[in-house]
Amino acid sequence: MSRRLRIAQVSPLYERVPPALYGGTERIVGYITEELVKRGHDVTLFASGDSRTKAKLVAPAPRALRLDGHPRDDLAFHLLELARVFEHPRDFDIIHCHIGHLAFPFSRLAGASTLHTLHGRLDLPDTFPVFRHFRDEPLVSISHAQRRPFKGLGVTWAGTVYHGVPLAKYPFSPARGTYLAFLGRISPEKRPDLAIALAKRLGIMLKIAAKVDPVDQVYFDRDIKPLLDHPLIDFIGEIRDDVKPDFLGRARALVFPIDWPEPFGLVMIEALACGTPVIARGCGSVPEVVLDGRTGFVVDTLEEMEAAVKAVDRIDRAECRRDVVRRFSVERMVDGYESIYQSVSGHARSA
Amino acid sequence: MSRRLRIAQVSPLYERVPPALYGGTERIVGYITEELVKRGHDVTLFASGDSRTKAKLVAPAPRALRLDGHPRDDLAFHLLELARVFEHPRDFDIIHCHIGHLAFPFSRLAGASTLHTLHGRLDLPDTFPVFRHFRDEPLVSISHAQRRPFKGLGVTWAGTVYHGVPLAKYPFSPARGTYLAFLGRISPEKRPDLAIALAKRLGIMLKIAAKVDPVDQVYFDRDIKPLLDHPLIDFIGEIRDDVKPDFLGRARALVFPIDWPEPFGLVMIEALACGTPVIARGCGSVPEVVLDGRTGFVVDTLEEMEAAVKAVDRIDRAECRRDVVRRFSVERMVDGYESIYQSVSGHARSA
Repeated sequence: MSRRLRIAQVSPLYERVPPALYGGTERIVGYITEELVKRGHDVTLFASGDSRTKAKLVAPAPRALRLDGHPRDDLAFHLLELARVFEHPRDFDIIHCHIGHLAFPFSRLAGASTLHTLHGRLDLPDTFPVFRHFRDEPLVSISHAQRRPFKGLGVTWAGTVYHGVPLAKYPFSPARGTYLAFLGRISPEKRPDLAIALAKRLGIMLKIAAKVDPVDQVYFDRDIKPLLDHPLIDFIGEIRDDVKPDFLGRARALVFPIDWPEPFGLVMIEALACGTPVIARGCGSVPEVVLDGRTGFVVDTLEEMEAAVKAVDRIDRAECRRDVVRRFSVERMVDGYESIYQSVSGHARSA
Repeated sequence: MSRRLRIAQVSPLYERVPPALYGGTERIVGYITEELVKRGHDVTLFASGDSRTKAKLVAPAPRALRLDGHPRDDLAFHLLELARVFEHPRDFDIIHCHIGHLAFPFSRLAGASTLHTLHGRLDLPDTFPVFRHFRDEPLVSISHAQRRPFKGLGVTWAGTVYHGVPLAKYPFSPARGTYLAFLGRISPEKRPDLAIALAKRLGIMLKIAAKVDPVDQVYFDRDIKPLLDHPLIDFIGEIRDDVKPDFLGRARALVFPIDWPEPFGLVMIEALACGTPVIARGCGSVPEVVLDGRTGFVVDTLEEMEAAVKAVDRIDRAECRRDVVRRFSVERMVDGYESIYQSVSGHARSA
């Protein structure tokens, strides 16, 4: 093992770590945290109080904000979290933040050794001035594609670290599955309507395991609900974390017909880990994650999606698993972060 | 004049300073800023780039966010603003923030001499932990009533400073007006429906000059719009700042039938400055601002509001004006702040 570090992991407070249901960022924070503990580092996790971890837990909010049942002042809780981290910057060799630009001024004012993993889309011009102002804060992208909108901003990239999944939690299913799977959020940019159209055209079963955020309720009621009343479409709703490997592993393919600059797309590697190929539209990170023709198909139109489903049984499910072992395991991800920590933590700044 | 100070005024960026239309906080920031310049202080105003001021202007956003025509990442712009203020804390003897708890961690991490005027309601339990954590930040309340929810939190009150209006901009109208006036926002807690019911019961004209925020559009369409089609009700919409004194001065009374803990209620002193009495329900700051029976009436029920309108011509309009000169002028407000600045700026903290 490399030098033992005192590491703070700063999670969003929307979901617990790890999340009970949906929640990509908090899931990744959990994976990183537990693996760092396993490797002997001294880790403090800043996260909601209902989180479960072998690290020291510091909880600025007693329960995760999203499932707490009433609208919360998210900002107040995250300010409190950052205050508790950055008022004692010398307690940590590295502070690893997963909450975006809100952490930048804290990091600079405290003169702390900080690393920021950006988990969201970056094509939001309103945020460019704040990224330009804090261009010396070391950033990690979760795909190369994610960086594109920042071209010319002069920010400091410490590296790209792909997400990873725990291989034991997503066991390999060698048998070819029967249905198409759609997993994630119902929202216009995820294009559940395309997945539904695809299933109906091919006469193949589609199972949709997805949450509906309040902001997407109108879209769901108006555009998606009317499409669900069909013998081939099975809308399951939001599913628990522990049934996901089964849901994914028994699918013939994961359909990921997105229409937005996907920063990473965790569900793709979850499916691949189970041996299930991925049919995805080539936005954002997709061409980096899916090896076209080897672990699935990178497509564009509905016609191409149809052709991909017809060809998908030629994909070797074992190869899907192997690619996750090679490129998308938690160990591989934490190797990436550990190496960045070692370089960043050597450069504590003066405030 | 007291000691010359280098003062930063940190405004919200939602409206320009001063606002073209609605915008209580930015209006007050403008009044304070110009009066401090007049008194010879070295003032830097942090505000949107379309602001107008005799102070030095630093603009983290080129235009005010609310009227800029598309949804903005408010947080990104305010972070940038605070970064620009607090990265050079020694440039100022006092940093006077008007943007709430977002500024607390900046102030503490920078070890700056800071004063925070709280402009909003404080009965929001989600914010209590952050106020408790930063209980050494000096706070100014804008009424005594505003403080009530913080009882037991242990925060540091530097004083209460009532808002003020520029007497020259709100000239005295000695003649008794004809209609009831409602001025502000259309929202459930402002109870425009009560003002409308009152006018209809008494057979007296009601003029409503009010904006409708996107968040209140459904309430307006469903609950208020159906009430407007009546010969006694004149809905004018949002009015420009420069026509407000005329609108208020020609009214018989301002009706302020609020149903929330009003932190101050700027429109009440704008009306009083013009000589127009105020009929207001006794929530929040109202009993501090309206001298019951002398500058208007503090009421509760619709019946009491009716009785108050019938009695309102007994109120001496000159006394309304006098009370503003005495307690609610800009000069009086800035006297209050200047005295607090002198004490707070002597106590710069170590970071």
